[in-house]
Amino acid sequence: MNNHDDRSGQEVVSLCLELVSRPSVTPKDEGCQQLIATRLRDSGFHIENLTHIDTTNMYATHGSGSPNFCFLGHTDVVPPGDSGLWAYSPFEPVIQGGMIYGRGTADMKGGDAAMVMAAKRFVEKHPNHKGRISLIFTSNEEGDFKNGTPHVVSRLMERNENIDYCIVGEPSSQSVLGDTIKIGRRGSITANIRVFGIQGHVAYPHLGRNPVHDAVPALNELLSYQWDGGNEYFPPTSMQIPNVRAGTGAGNVIPGDCFIQINWRFSNETTADEIKHVTDEILSKYKLNYHIDWEFFGDPYITEKGELLDITRKAIKDVCGIDVQESTAGGTSDGRFVAKFNECQVIELGAISETIHKANECTSAEDLEKLAVIYEKILEMIMAE
Amino acid sequence: MNNHDDRSGQEVVSLCLELVSRPSVTPKDEGCQQLIATRLRDSGFHIENLTHIDTTNMYATHGSGSPNFCFLGHTDVVPPGDSGLWAYSPFEPVIQGGMIYGRGTADMKGGDAAMVMAAKRFVEKHPNHKGRISLIFTSNEEGDFKNGTPHVVSRLMERNENIDYCIVGEPSSQSVLGDTIKIGRRGSITANIRVFGIQGHVAYPHLGRNPVHDAVPALNELLSYQWDGGNEYFPPTSMQIPNVRAGTGAGNVIPGDCFIQINWRFSNETTADEIKHVTDEILSKYKLNYHIDWEFFGDPYITEKGELLDITRKAIKDVCGIDVQESTAGGTSDGRFVAKFNECQVIELGAISETIHKANECTSAEDLEKLAVIYEKILEMIMAE
Repeated sequence: MNNHDDRSGQEVVSLCLELVSRPSVTPKDEGCQQLIATRLRDSGFHIENLTHIDTTNMYATHGSGSPNFCFLGHTDVVPPGDSGLWAYSPFEPVIQGGMIYGRGTADMKGGDAAMVMAAKRFVEKHPNHKGRISLIFTSNEEGDFKNGTPHVVSRLMERNENIDYCIVGEPSSQSVLGDTIKIGRRGSITANIRVFGIQGHVAYPHLGRNPVHDAVPALNELLSYQWDGGNEYFPPTSMQIPNVRAGTGAGNVIPGDCFIQINWRFSNETTADEIKHVTDEILSKYKLNYHIDWEFFGDPYITEKGELLDITRKAIKDVCGIDVQESTAGGTSDGRFVAKFNECQVIELGAISETIHKANECTSAEDLEKLAVIYEKILEMIMAE
Repeated sequence: MNNHDDRSGQEVVSLCLELVSRPSVTPKDEGCQQLIATRLRDSGFHIENLTHIDTTNMYATHGSGSPNFCFLGHTDVVPPGDSGLWAYSPFEPVIQGGMIYGRGTADMKGGDAAMVMAAKRFVEKHPNHKGRISLIFTSNEEGDFKNGTPHVVSRLMERNENIDYCIVGEPSSQSVLGDTIKIGRRGSITANIRVFGIQGHVAYPHLGRNPVHDAVPALNELLSYQWDGGNEYFPPTSMQIPNVRAGTGAGNVIPGDCFIQINWRFSNETTADEIKHVTDEILSKYKLNYHIDWEFFGDPYITEKGELLDITRKAIKDVCGIDVQESTAGGTSDGRFVAKFNECQVIELGAISETIHKANECTSAEDLEKLAVIYEKILEMIMAE
C-alpha cells in the first residue's frame, strides 16, 4: 500500500469513528449528515438537505449532467440492545486488534465513511470528471423507511434527474472483504389476515363458527401453491407464516376470530399484485370471512449485467485478489428504490456483515481503507474524464 | 297443592337460602355439607365424611343392600364475577317476584335442597324402604373435580358398593321445569400439542423450519376426519380448535414452535384411545416433530332406557303435566363418574339453567317445591317397600 492509500485510509477510519460516536438510533441522525456535508463541501460538493417529516436526508452532488453515479448510504443504526452484552460502550468506538467496535461500524457508518472519502479523493483528482458524482444519505433505513430514500428518489424523479449507476455501501461481504456483492434483492410483502368466525362454547359447535377451521384448508392450499420457479438470479418465491394467534386461552371457547400473518419474499418472476390476487382467490374459494391489511416493503430488483457489474468485479479483483460472488439473498435494502430509475445499475458492496444488528458489532479498520480504494477504482473506470 | 306439599316446599326454599348464604366458591364448602348432614341425620341417615385433600365430600345413606338409589349434588359454586352486575349481593339470597336470587340458586343449591328434602320425606314415610337411599355431595364439581366425585366413587367401588340408580340434581330444564332431562353426556378430551420447528429469518427459509407449515396439512386432515356418525342418542363426535399460538410477534422471524389445542366432545361410538391413536397417526404421517399433553375429562355415558327413565318421565308428567325431552347436549357433569357403576342408570333432572354461571343467577321458589315432589315421586315408584 502506498503513502497515498495510507493517508486515505486513516481518514476513512477517522470519519467512521466520528460517525459512530453519534448515537443515531433510527430515525435519528444526530449530526452525522452535517459532518459528512462538511467533508464533502470542502471538496466542492453541493449539498441539498431533503429532510422530510421525521427523517434527515441529504443529496450531495459534484458536476452535472449524465451519467449520474450515486453512492447510497444511511446514517441511522439499530438500537444497541442490552448494554450488558457489549464489551465496549456502543457509541464510544474503540479500535482493538485492528477492529473498530461500536454500533453501526459495519451497518453502515464504515461504508458511509469509505464512500465519502472515495468520492472526495476522486473529485479532487478528477475535477473535470464525466457527468455527476452524487451521494444520498438517509437517517431512516432501519426503521419505517418511507420518508427516507423513497422520498429522495421521488424528488429527483419530479425534476427529471436520473441515476445511472448506484453503489450501496451496505455490508455485503461474508467472510472476507469483497467475497460477495448483492446484484439484486427479492421483493417483500406481508398479509395481515383477520379471519372472522362466531365465538361460542365448544360443546355447542353448531352455534359457533371456528375461524381456525375455516382458515386451515385455505392455508393448506396457499402453502402448496407454487408461486414461481425462480430463475438464474433468484430462488423461487417463498412464503412464510411468522405469526398465528387464535383463542381466548380457555379450552372450551370457540374463538371469534383468528390472526394469520404471511410474508412473501418474491423473485422478479412474480409481482406483488399476483400474490395479492392468488391469496384473495384462495381465501375466497374456501369462503372465509376475512380482511387483509397488506404491507408492501418493496419490489424485487436485479442488475444482472452491465458496465457497473463488470467494473466492480475488476476493482475487487485488483484490490482484494478474489473473484466476487454475486448474490440476491437476504432481506431488502434501499437499493430497491434507486433501482426504479431508468436503466439504473445497482450493486451493493461493503464490509463483512457477520456482526450487524448484534452486540459488539465491529468492522476491520484495514477493510474500510481497502473499501474506499475499491470505490475510488470503480469511479476511475466509469467516471474519469 | 295440599298442606303437606306446602310444608315441604317451604322447607326446600328455606334450606336453599341457608346454603346460598354460605359463599362456597369452588372448591370451598363453607359448612354447606354440615348443614345438609344435620338435616339428614335428623331423619336417620348415616353420614360419612369423605373429605380428600382440598375437597369436602360426604356420603349419606339410609338403609342397606340393593338397590342403591343415589342423589348426586355439589355444594361449590362458580365465582360471582363482577359484583357491580348483581342487583342483590350474590351470597345474601333474596326472594323477589317468586324468584330466589343468589350465586348457586340454580347451579345447584336449589337442587341440593330439593334432593335432601325429598330423601328426608321419603324415608320418614317409608322407614322400611327397599335397599338403600343415598346422597353424595362434593365441593369440587365446578373446579378441578378429581378429588370430588371420582374419589367418592373409587372409595365405594373399593368396598364393593354399587349404585343402581342415580339422579343428578343439576339444572337440566330449559324453559320450564321438567321440559328436559339429560340421559347422558358426551365424553371430553383435550390435546395440548406443541409442534417444534427451527427458528430463523423469513428471508432464509432453508435455514429454518416453520412448525406452522408442518402443522397445517396435518390439521387439515384431522379437520376432515369423520370420527363417527353419532347415533340416536348422540350427535357425531365433534373436534374444535380453541387455541393456536405461534410466532414472536416480529414479521420477519420463522417461529421456533407452535401451540395447538384441540378438544373433542365424543359420542359412545368413539373412545378416547381411538382419538389419541388417530391423532398420533395423522401427526406422524405428516412427519411433525411434536409432543402432546392429553387432558382427559371423561368418557361419554348414556342411560338410553330402563326403569329410572320410564319412572322419571311419569313423575314429571304427573307433577308438571309435560312430556320431557331427552338430551345429551352440553358440557360434562359428575354423572359420568357415577355411570361407571355396574349397570347404573343415571339421569340429570333439575331447575332451569338459563341464569347459571351469570350475574343475577336465580331460580323459581315454586319450581324448587315441585322439584322435591318429583324426586319424592320417583323414590316412591322405585324404592317404596
